[in-house]
Amino acid sequence: MIHILLIVCSLFTFSAGVQDFCVADLKGPDTPAGYTCKPAAKVTVDDFVSTGLRYAGNTSNIIKAAVTPAFSAQLPGVNGLGISIARLDIAAGGVVPMHTHPGGSELLLVTQGFITAGFVSSANSVYVKTLKKGDLMVFPQGLLHFQVNAGGVTAVAFASFSSATPGLQILDFALFANDLPSKLVEATTFLDDATVKALKAVLGGTG
Amino acid sequence: MIHILLIVCSLFTFSAGVQDFCVADLKGPDTPAGYTCKPAAKVTVDDFVSTGLRYAGNTSNIIKAAVTPAFSAQLPGVNGLGISIARLDIAAGGVVPMHTHPGGSELLLVTQGFITAGFVSSANSVYVKTLKKGDLMVFPQGLLHFQVNAGGVTAVAFASFSSATPGLQILDFALFANDLPSKLVEATTFLDDATVKALKAVLGGTG
Amino acid sequence: MIHILLIVCSLFTFSAGVQDFCVADLKGPDTPAGYTCKPAAKVTVDDFVSTGLRYAGNTSNIIKAAVTPAFSAQLPGVNGLGISIARLDIAAGGVVPMHTHPGGSELLLVTQGFITAGFVSSANSVYVKTLKKGDLMVFPQGLLHFQVNAGGVTAVAFASFSSATPGLQILDFALFANDLPSKLVEATTFLDDATVKALKAVLGGTG
Amino acid sequence: MIHILLIVCSLFTFSAGVQDFCVADLKGPDTPAGYTCKPAAKVTVDDFVSTGLRYAGNTSNIIKAAVTPAFSAQLPGVNGLGISIARLDIAAGGVVPMHTHPGGSELLLVTQGFITAGFVSSANSVYVKTLKKGDLMVFPQGLLHFQVNAGGVTAVAFASFSSATPGLQILDFALFANDLPSKLVEATTFLDDATVKALKAVLGGTG
Amino acid sequence: MIHILLIVCSLFTFSAGVQDFCVADLKGPDTPAGYTCKPAAKVTVDDFVSTGLRYAGNTSNIIKAAVTPAFSAQLPGVNGLGISIARLDIAAGGVVPMHTHPGGSELLLVTQGFITAGFVSSANSVYVKTLKKGDLMVFPQGLLHFQVNAGGVTAVAFASFSSATPGLQILDFALFANDLPSKLVEATTFLDDATVKALKAVLGGTG
Amino acid sequence: MIHILLIVCSLFTFSAGVQDFCVADLKGPDTPAGYTCKPAAKVTVDDFVSTGLRYAGNTSNIIKAAVTPAFSAQLPGVNGLGISIARLDIAAGGVVPMHTHPGGSELLLVTQGFITAGFVSSANSVYVKTLKKGDLMVFPQGLLHFQVNAGGVTAVAFASFSSATPGLQILDFALFANDLPSKLVEATTFLDDATVKALKAVLGGTG
Repeated sequence: MIHILLIVCSLFTFSAGVQDFCVADLKGPDTPAGYTCKPAAKVTVDDFVSTGLRYAGNTSNIIKAAVTPAFSAQLPGVNGLGISIARLDIAAGGVVPMHTHPGGSELLLVTQGFITAGFVSSANSVYVKTLKKGDLMVFPQGLLHFQVNAGGVTAVAFASFSSATPGLQILDFALFANDLPSKLVEATTFLDDATVKALKAVLGGTG
Repeated sequence: MIHILLIVCSLFTFSAGVQDFCVADLKGPDTPAGYTCKPAAKVTVDDFVSTGLRYAGNTSNIIKAAVTPAFSAQLPGVNGLGISIARLDIAAGGVVPMHTHPGGSELLLVTQGFITAGFVSSANSVYVKTLKKGDLMVFPQGLLHFQVNAGGVTAVAFASFSSATPGLQILDFALFANDLPSKLVEATTFLDDATVKALKAVLGGTG
Repeated sequence: MIHILLIVCSLFTFSAGVQDFCVADLKGPDTPAGYTCKPAAKVTVDDFVSTGLRYAGNTSNIIKAAVTPAFSAQLPGVNGLGISIARLDIAAGGVVPMHTHPGGSELLLVTQGFITAGFVSSANSVYVKTLKKGDLMVFPQGLLHFQVNAGGVTAVAFASFSSATPGLQILDFALFANDLPSKLVEATTFLDDATVKALKAVLGGTG
Repeated sequence: MIHILLIVCSLFTFSAGVQDFCVADLKGPDTPAGYTCKPAAKVTVDDFVSTGLRYAGNTSNIIKAAVTPAFSAQLPGVNGLGISIARLDIAAGGVVPMHTHPGGSELLLVTQGFITAGFVSSANSVYVKTLKKGDLMVFPQGLLHFQVNAGGVTAVAFASFSSATPGLQILDFALFANDLPSKLVEATTFLDDATVKALKAVLGGTG
Repeated sequence: MIHILLIVCSLFTFSAGVQDFCVADLKGPDTPAGYTCKPAAKVTVDDFVSTGLRYAGNTSNIIKAAVTPAFSAQLPGVNGLGISIARLDIAAGGVVPMHTHPGGSELLLVTQGFITAGFVSSANSVYVKTLKKGDLMVFPQGLLHFQVNAGGVTAVAFASFSSATPGLQILDFALFANDLPSKLVEATTFLDDATVKALKAVLGGTG
Repeated sequence: MIHILLIVCSLFTFSAGVQDFCVADLKGPDTPAGYTCKPAAKVTVDDFVSTGLRYAGNTSNIIKAAVTPAFSAQLPGVNGLGISIARLDIAAGGVVPMHTHPGGSELLLVTQGFITAGFVSSANSVYVKTLKKGDLMVFPQGLLHFQVNAGGVTAVAFASFSSATPGLQILDFALFANDLPSKLVEATTFLDDATVKALKAVLGGTG
């Protein structure tokens, strides 16, 4: 019996150097490959579990939609593992506006209602489809895409990503919700001054 | 107007060399990075969409469970994008047996019922949790894990993977459902001959 | 002497399996990692050299600018090496409109004139700077960015990319130069119908 | 001469930013890509050298075998370089039990004696071979594999890995040497209660 | 309006976990994937901009050439982005001696004068070309290559790299400008003692 | 029983799309990620096994050494797995001359005799050590390194690599065993014409 335990111990003494996972230490420094790791002794099952996507996000807003992420910051166990997820709630008439994920591809799964989703490629081709419960659609990394409620009821979907930190750049916010000078917006989008200023006013942009 | 179209054309003439995605040509050769690409001209939105996970898999089997994948072979648009998904249906009393995905990490999303899920690390630590609708759990790449129905009703879950071809090695099938000689199974698992032969009989193994 | 040559030969007989580079066979299949390789025996120095960026691109167009790429399709030697380049010519008053590279980061080098360049992050922060000859600016992968001539003379710049196929998605072309239905463009950008239709008319879009 | 030294100095002043290697600072934080780096000034040749595999491991144990690793924790110079190694000593009648390396592929080199080695694929195919001194066998990442002494004398082998931290999950220890509840082990492996409890008793498991 | 701002805020609250870029914190620890990141709040446009390559390097030295890098250490915004650049100034008669970049491929752009550049492959093939303004040549990772002024005037070129820290190993300095014992240099290069000692004297080597 | 087999079959029907490994089809095209894959049905255990390193290489040559590789071309099972190996035989007085592996890091294991090995970093530091049986030394990717017999008897070592195609560039062959013009060799190495021509004569170079 002592022999047995000895072998168990000796075989596992080198586990200290083994890295199956790297639970994010959100207070530690970030790196190009993700957060530094929480010490193994402090890791618990709750680092790998999230209950934050149980409930619908609040869709009482301008887009009648909500995005609830479970990225490294919300689910530290995904750090370094190349995967994460977000919940989409889109009320009737709601929309997840044109956006990109600079850091990952997206695989959308509809779990309730109907969603018209689409993306545009670098070759300027358009790929659009209306999806229902159980349907999937993949959006390749970095390409503009969108999701629109296509039924009279709230739709729910879950978007998985090929990165623990896929990022999210919403087109209208990038153009109209910050201090990028209107003149530069106009010169680089061909939108007219009135349109740019109206959208800046709505979305809180300045300049 | 001609000028305009000219610039559109000239700016996009080099798109031939641009690779936003690489839809799998399932009849072409495979490579270490995924399948060769279907010619861009033949790609349609249906290459990026799957309806195959709409319906429950057949759980009338020994494990009272079914796994329905949408990997490169079923959803060619994920080829090379580092993401894929599978649907799990686990009837009451059912189980997805101890298994690994050699090629990717898994992020489980429960969409119906209750599932007790867990994994074991290289350091031999156990991480187990009972999940309900909307809950998530991540299983780091290559580690043994399992899912067990934890309620009286059929549970449904979707497992996303950090690879378009994560693989699936079910422990019992690897040990007892092929021609790996019983003697080698016994020597390398410490199981006795009777146990090995009984399970081989059930699972169709020989030798 | 024979011994010497023998060792030279024997040491190099295994070079057949060595892959220093993989010059793109543009007629062969593409893969997620790049084109298949031209046979080593057919590779010449010209596969690694490009003279296509010697001359200014034609800026007599709506944006008064031209982008001349040297990606895998134009410079087959970069295939698989994670690097490529493009020449930008921007006449006075010209602009490289808001765009992204879904597949790579960009490092801009100004070699003539003055350019105001900028990008917007996922956190919606704006980074803008006016650059002159010899100045550099880096644009992280997948983020919206632009370049505008900031002087009275033609500006020239070279943009290096961290990929042999970085892609290029020009915002206005993605929204207004294809058959993406106006209704979807409007719903997902908050632009009004008149603006969308006017830009579609200018850029050749339908629907 | 001063000119010469000047050029030497000036050309190398930017070496501070150059990263040829990243010797593990084992007291610093770990990251998804490996340990943080020891300052260059403190690096010596001994960080790149290991003498720990000179001597046979102790095989006086239940499996009559020993595994002695040189991973990042034992040989800090391999950190970040995607390679590591371990020494296997397998006495007559000994065995390295069924196991996986979740983080890397293995290339086995036999340097003494005879070893029967094998692995099982996701497609449930079995690949087994008896190897002698100088023979090699590769085990793809994450797949179950084993090594058994196939002669009357102690066998020695060296296993190289495609990662500095390949991990090691020994099947029996994962199932029977921790607190994973017997009920869950039985439900997910189809082993009966007596077998599970007997092995738990031998290997030190509880629950 | 409050609703609008609410959605802006709520959609972006998770940006804290988003990593578009990782500006190098040069005082923080280095990792195998690059430096740890400067806190997002402290990042400014100047982290992404370099003016250090505006001016010619000093070519009054033995090789009549200068290399001015913009790697992570000089341009912290490239950290983790897989790209960097360096300026080469080569006076008439000057040369960038035989060297390698262990960590990245190089794409050379000539912006002034004439340069004869070349590299040698693992298969011992030679690829040499004389380039002029606007010409490009790619040097695959890790292979010996060189650049020689091929005209009567100073040549200028910019070398982009597929890494933020490509490294630079100049052959003569590696052999003759350190304390590698002459005996080992001679044994491993077939150069005679007089040659080795003469070059050590010129380049400051000892031993 | 039929049910049982059904589940075995249904669970594994999707294995067609699973890629645990990609045995090189050496007659098929190469790609930047390795060779295309041999069809799974034709793969046998011998694709993963090599007996080619059982026997000593022929050291009756100018360097009194031999390198016998097991890269993708010799051991097709390593294709795409990021690992390979080579056997070194170094007779008394023999040497593996100064060389680099452009595509991978090396981990050297001495199995017989004594070897003095070393490498030089980008920062021009020298790391040298004399190794004996069982000792390890790691050489980071792309850096110049060498191995010299340090005893009176033949030494044997095995070099593992972090790539299935690490490449091998032997300095003297790159400089003196091809048609790189002597003038360019001299200009870029500071060696004199007599030395260059003498070594070209010995090693078979021209020009």
